[in-house]
Amino acid sequence: MTHVPENHPRYLSLKYREIIAEGVRRGITAIEGMTAHGRGETFDYILGEKTHDFAFEAERAAVALMLLSRHPVISVNGNTAALVPKEIIELSEVLSAVLEVNIFHFSEERVRNIKEYIESFGGKILADLDAELKGLTSARRMVSSKGILIADTVMVPLEDGDRCEILKTNGKKTITIDLNPLSRTSRMADITIVDNIIRAIPNMIKIAEELKDYPKKELEEILARYDNKKILNRSIIAIRDYLTEKATEVMS
Amino acid sequence: MTHVPENHPRYLSLKYREIIAEGVRRGITAIEGMTAHGRGETFDYILGEKTHDFAFEAERAAVALMLLSRHPVISVNGNTAALVPKEIIELSEVLSAVLEVNIFHFSEERVRNIKEYIESFGGKILADLDAELKGLTSARRMVSSKGILIADTVMVPLEDGDRCEILKTNGKKTITIDLNPLSRTSRMADITIVDNIIRAIPNMIKIAEELKDYPKKELEEILARYDNKKILNRSIIAIRDYLTEKATEVMS
Repeated sequence: MTHVPENHPRYLSLKYREIIAEGVRRGITAIEGMTAHGRGETFDYILGEKTHDFAFEAERAAVALMLLSRHPVISVNGNTAALVPKEIIELSEVLSAVLEVNIFHFSEERVRNIKEYIESFGGKILADLDAELKGLTSARRMVSSKGILIADTVMVPLEDGDRCEILKTNGKKTITIDLNPLSRTSRMADITIVDNIIRAIPNMIKIAEELKDYPKKELEEILARYDNKKILNRSIIAIRDYLTEKATEVMS
Repeated sequence: MTHVPENHPRYLSLKYREIIAEGVRRGITAIEGMTAHGRGETFDYILGEKTHDFAFEAERAAVALMLLSRHPVISVNGNTAALVPKEIIELSEVLSAVLEVNIFHFSEERVRNIKEYIESFGGKILADLDAELKGLTSARRMVSSKGILIADTVMVPLEDGDRCEILKTNGKKTITIDLNPLSRTSRMADITIVDNIIRAIPNMIKIAEELKDYPKKELEEILARYDNKKILNRSIIAIRDYLTEKATEVMS
């Protein structure tokens, strides 16, 4: 891995870019995952690279939904595995959620690599792909009969719109982490966390530790108050305000 | 190359993403170039994927500056070579500018691959790296003694801020094509074209065919009227307005 000096103005951004490139070299992340990461970088940048209040609200609602679910599953793709392997394991444990490998650019080798990578951090993850979701003809219909097939709620971080749609058609509630509030995934999901996954998952772990002892009724109230359209609207407004500030700055 | 159907809503975007991935497979584009491409995709997306009037003005000023220069050079990196190999050759010919390979993630093999790729389209390109720019310790100080070293104006599409800064310290005028109007490169360059390179280069070819017969005085007037800070400001405002429109859409 190239050494990026810690005092570089873009240190964190460059560090995670390197981690994704390393994921490609390890056969965990698809080459196309690099472009997806770049798209996310831009949105994070124009969001000021911080967790906004709307993201925190969505993270809280997401945790409440996962805790209320009978069979919650966290879908893990190549970018998620590369960026937050330990954190995603920890979150699944606090939430008693199942991890399942599910990737967009399908290859058996990459499924195996992701499984082994997560296991190398002590995590358990499903990668059976022994069942089918209805309504898809691509390899992406394949899921685990012990995971997504029987899930009532699926968290699909860094996913594409088709995936989210098919999960909903199959009657599942969906949570996504997507820095692009305009994406089809963001509009399709029940709960959209417009935040960088490297901040969102640690936040969710903390929130889960707090909420896991809450009575069911209080969790339901958190969910009842939650409005995903408003969250998306607020996130776009936040970007707009950030850019307005920057537009003034470049003139000075 | 995966087949993307032409009626896909994101057809062009997906097509160029594939071309960049193909560039990586050919050893022309660095893996990290995929992330850079992704960042650009997002900015293009929130600019509405079109050439705005501010971009067209910058393209016109850039052509005027290149035509007024004694020794104009176009620096070609892995993403530029992958995306617009034929177009960059054509532009260099209309402008009587020199092409020179210059890459951020240095490798001799990739320099050779880019040179051979451009040559396969009938272009001439320098790749000597037999001279040094002052003020840099990395491999990126290496330039051609027949190209950037003696250039008065360097066009550096899809570049990073350090590169642009060092060229300016070495007394050169710089032109960049950068979809991020907030980047250090954008703020550092004398002329910043906030446009997708796949639209900018063909535009510049047309503009160059018109301006190449203009008297020097008229070209100087185009330049005198040009204000890069205002162009950047207008481009940020354009993104802001696009997002404001979208913020209303998600609520409906």
